Amino acid sequence: MSNQILIPKLAIVGVGLIGGSLALALKAAGVVGEVVGIGRGLANLEKALELGVVDRITQDPAEGVADADLVLLATPVLTLTEMASRVLPHMKPGAVLTDGGSVKGSVARAIEPLVPEGVHFVPGHPIAGTEKSGAEAAFATLYHRRRCILTPTAQTDPEALRLVRRVWETAGCEVVEMDVEKHDRILGAISHLPHMVAYSLVNAVSSYDRYEENILEYSAGGFRDFTRIASSDPTMWRDIALTNRDALLEMIERFELSLAELKEDIRGEKKDRLYDFFLRSKQSRDAIL
Amino acid sequence: MSNQILIPKLAIVGVGLIGGSLALALKAAGVVGEVVGIGRGLANLEKALELGVVDRITQDPAEGVADADLVLLATPVLTLTEMASRVLPHMKPGAVLTDGGSVKGSVARAIEPLVPEGVHFVPGHPIAGTEKSGAEAAFATLYHRRRCILTPTAQTDPEALRLVRRVWETAGCEVVEMDVEKHDRILGAISHLPHMVAYSLVNAVSSYDRYEENILEYSAGGFRDFTRIASSDPTMWRDIALTNRDALLEMIERFELSLAELKEDIRGEKKDRLYDFFLRSKQSRDAIL
Ligand SMILES: NC(=O)c1ccc[n+]([C@@H]2O[C@H](COP(=O)([O-])OP(=O)(O)OC[C@H]3O[C@@H](n4cnc5c(N)ncnc54)[C@H](OP(=O)(O)O)[C@@H]3O)[C@@H](O)[C@H]2O)c1
Ligand SMILES: NC(=O)c1ccc[n+]([C@@H]2O[C@H](COP(=O)([O-])OP(=O)(O)OC[C@H]3O[C@@H](n4cnc5c(N)ncnc54)[C@H](OP(=O)(O)O)[C@@H]3O)[C@@H](O)[C@H]2O)c1
Repeated sequence: MSNQILIPKLAIVGVGLIGGSLALALKAAGVVGEVVGIGRGLANLEKALELGVVDRITQDPAEGVADADLVLLATPVLTLTEMASRVLPHMKPGAVLTDGGSVKGSVARAIEPLVPEGVHFVPGHPIAGTEKSGAEAAFATLYHRRRCILTPTAQTDPEALRLVRRVWETAGCEVVEMDVEKHDRILGAISHLPHMVAYSLVNAVSSYDRYEENILEYSAGGFRDFTRIASSDPTMWRDIALTNRDALLEMIERFELSLAELKEDIRGEKKDRLYDFFLRSKQSRDAIL
Repeated sequence: MSNQILIPKLAIVGVGLIGGSLALALKAAGVVGEVVGIGRGLANLEKALELGVVDRITQDPAEGVADADLVLLATPVLTLTEMASRVLPHMKPGAVLTDGGSVKGSVARAIEPLVPEGVHFVPGHPIAGTEKSGAEAAFATLYHRRRCILTPTAQTDPEALRLVRRVWETAGCEVVEMDVEKHDRILGAISHLPHMVAYSLVNAVSSYDRYEENILEYSAGGFRDFTRIASSDPTMWRDIALTNRDALLEMIERFELSLAELKEDIRGEKKDRLYDFFLRSKQSRDAIL
């Protein structure tokens, strides 16, 4: 890994799992000068400082980004536009704004018109995460061997795109570029849909009240692993559900058809079709092991 | 752990994950004399012998159970009745038959009428497993700190029930007794439904063909972990889906309602309701961590 300074001054807006882990990864690689943590609550910022995730903290976005070379927005998706509007007017000429939001279409469309002359915006999304939140959840190796998707638009500056690519590569990612619409549909399928399914499953099972005891206590490893993602932050997922609405509704309907097919085969006791349904699924799943 | 012989001769019909792991656990505890492995295919039986899971193998159930004190049936659910009919007439007086099948109502109803005078049957189900199959998947600690549910009926001999309870406790389980109907509904909710959902999810996502590439390649840890249970054996799950049909259809319908509620809130952009849906789920899930 390089230890040449790539980013003399980095500002992270929202020092949680995503923002904090990027700060730690770049520090570990020795490619950043100072890291400024910008946040809403003081408690999380102080934790971030104490853990060495950032070098300096502030609750004033304007002051925090004033001489930053790169600013990463890593707050919940629905807050990204407002945070962008608060930092963009204070960024220095030549500085680059990027984000790690899980939805890209609505974010890019809302932020691009706000970008002043001389400042650049590169929308991005690292495909990595855990179900934990906050500065304490951050760790330097979160991005190792993960993909990061950058979604440049017609307005994206090629030089700024190259810088953001190098940053994520330095953090350990394989960087892929695609358009925002494709990003939102693919993530709707492989990430947003599974979360909706897991949340719905936990609610369906935990509200089952035929017996007095809590039946979740009988659940073995399978259920626990399967539903771990339903422990993720409700605000983050509310925002994703709202901002990737159309792709998500399309995928929920595909999933409903798949489950309805299975249900009809169970109802009709279709032995061979059931075997085939489970086998096809197992083969697809095993192919990504 | 005791090393007094509890079972001088144990016969395992179906030396896979469930049967093989019980054999290994009882051997490790020093409570069995000889373990006979009975199976269909020679390859798996030879593997079991080579790995020390069993001490002797045979493809002839009648011969294999002839002087066994305890016989465990651990083949797929739809084969349990036939296997029972093949071993019961050859079991010695006082011997006990038990099983590890994932569904209990249909199994108990079908096997009980076949049990000859002097031989006893105790239906059971260890709530433990992985997505792997066969003798190679077996390991001695599979049952450590897991629950095992025994579902005695009006016909169950109390002495035989006590023996089977001691066997599973020796393997590391906390043993719980409940009636067959309750077992099938609870397992339908916490195990069978999640498997149906995971299989349907993988099929829905892997058949998504809007883009040329295989979108599953973008899936991060979340999707992989979440869908691990969809790698389970298709025969096992076909049999469970068919034999626990009614409880499973009830649970699939509950789940469909839960997902439909979420879908309508996404469609209607109901911010507060979405937050509440995800929060409720997170709280239920976190309670079983
Ligand atoms: N977690 C994942 O798996 C994952 C993966 C890829 C991308 N993402 C995206 O990355 C972003 C951050 O997610 P995360 O997992 O890092 O979340 P996180 O750990 O909860 O961190 C979010 C940070 O944003 C701050 N914040 C929250 N609400 C805010 C508001 N209304 N205004 C200003 N700051 C606010 C929080 O600080 P306070 O404590 O002060 O509120 C916190 O430091 C989201 O856009 C998410 O979609 C997440
Ligand atoms: N896996 C779990 O998570 C889990 C948990 C609790 C209970 N169970 C129950 O335990 C039982 C066994 O499951 P498992 O996971 O141990 O499966 P497994 O690893 O595939 O073992 C099943 C064994 O049964 C034999 N077998 C398969 N089909 C047969 C047939 N038609 N006739 C005779 N023998 C046959 C196989 O031998 P060959 O190689 O010769 O075919 C194999 O040794 C099932 O009833 C299942 O519902 C499973």
